[in-house]
Amino acid sequence: MVYSNQILRLINEMNITYENLSSKIDNAILKPNMKVSEIEAFCDQSVKYQFASVAVNSGFASIAKYFTKKSSTKLCCAIGFPLGLTSVFCKAVEIEDAINSGADELDFVINIGRLKSHDYFYIENEIKELVKAAEGKTTKLIIETCYLNKNEKINICKCALNTGVDFIKTSTGFGKNGATVDDVRLIKSIVKNYCKVKAAGGIKNLKDTLILIRNGADRIGTNSGVKIMDEFKKMIKT
Amino acid sequence: MVYSNQILRLINEMNITYENLSSKIDNAILKPNMKVSEIEAFCDQSVKYQFASVAVNSGFASIAKYFTKKSSTKLCCAIGFPLGLTSVFCKAVEIEDAINSGADELDFVINIGRLKSHDYFYIENEIKELVKAAEGKTTKLIIETCYLNKNEKINICKCALNTGVDFIKTSTGFGKNGATVDDVRLIKSIVKNYCKVKAAGGIKNLKDTLILIRNGADRIGTNSGVKIMDEFKKMIKT
Repeated sequence: MVYSNQILRLINEMNITYENLSSKIDNAILKPNMKVSEIEAFCDQSVKYQFASVAVNSGFASIAKYFTKKSSTKLCCAIGFPLGLTSVFCKAVEIEDAINSGADELDFVINIGRLKSHDYFYIENEIKELVKAAEGKTTKLIIETCYLNKNEKINICKCALNTGVDFIKTSTGFGKNGATVDDVRLIKSIVKNYCKVKAAGGIKNLKDTLILIRNGADRIGTNSGVKIMDEFKKMIKT
Repeated sequence: MVYSNQILRLINEMNITYENLSSKIDNAILKPNMKVSEIEAFCDQSVKYQFASVAVNSGFASIAKYFTKKSSTKLCCAIGFPLGLTSVFCKAVEIEDAINSGADELDFVINIGRLKSHDYFYIENEIKELVKAAEGKTTKLIIETCYLNKNEKINICKCALNTGVDFIKTSTGFGKNGATVDDVRLIKSIVKNYCKVKAAGGIKNLKDTLILIRNGADRIGTNSGVKIMDEFKKMIKT
């Protein structure tokens, strides 16, 4: 009951409606062992729930596009995912291939090893090349915060501001930790309104979703979009 | 002491020498947060230990090649790694890119979702296309056994026999489980001598290495190659 009250208070304070919550969620099916039929059902459901996008691995772009093409739900593709350790050339080809299959949004993972080596020249060039390869489509730079110290987080955000990338995204969901409120606040404090923020990784319920949004997340990446929206619907009925 | 005796018995029964053990190990550095300097040191050490290969993510191929080019240690690159969910086209481009950067061996992950969907037409075609892209270089097909039931394991092995792929490899090391003796025996019972077997994922010590080799593994993938060989050296001194 205390939990419910806390959520209701957040919903009221933030003026959240069904549409402005669902339109902030990228509903993701990224695990390696999903059958094609499971991906199809997931995409179909994501459209019904009016999510911002459905996110799939790039090799499933054309399958996912079939379900999203007549809807407002975009097709988001994960690129260089989840390790970020293919070459810039390979990631650019993967982006072009995903766009050819219908991708509207591209979530690419930075070369984390180069970032840990503080090779910011490489990093900034990589982001610029991938934004260019995306030809005006929405781009999200995944920085995998769980492997970075505070300075590295600050520096990658500053780099990103020079590149035209649309979002900075905290995590792949495959690292040792996912999104935290502290990371979202830190990223937001640097990029302000020049770049959007996507929180992803380990977000499983309505409360965490609302708190992350209130702290600066413009988009939420989760595989639990349906559960979160069902929780919301139940909450506003009570 | 019982542990030592058991290992010594295995070493004697199997007639294992330093060279034929090190030449069976692919020493792998595949984690996303390794600095360039750590990859360099790892490659340098892998050459000194005379491993069969050093395995890196494809984006680090050219860096790793610098250390292996004058040695007998091959450069092995992970492709479509670890989820296997980029398109066949992207994996083929990644293989070509890795070969251009000096890769001698290519460990590629099958589209596990297609395999779970029993789309063996897709799977067999994918393997053939990737073997073709590898242009005669050594190829290893990663099937990620932890997500497969027994029939799926048998069927993918049968598929592989039609494709010219050199090895079947159990695991990426990023799935929920790695190599098991049972899986190695099962794969070996199907592919016999028509295809080699690589056990990988979770192999951390000499005893497991020896047992997997005795049960049919021709190659061992591990990030603990140095520890395993040091254990071997200590063992044969006693």
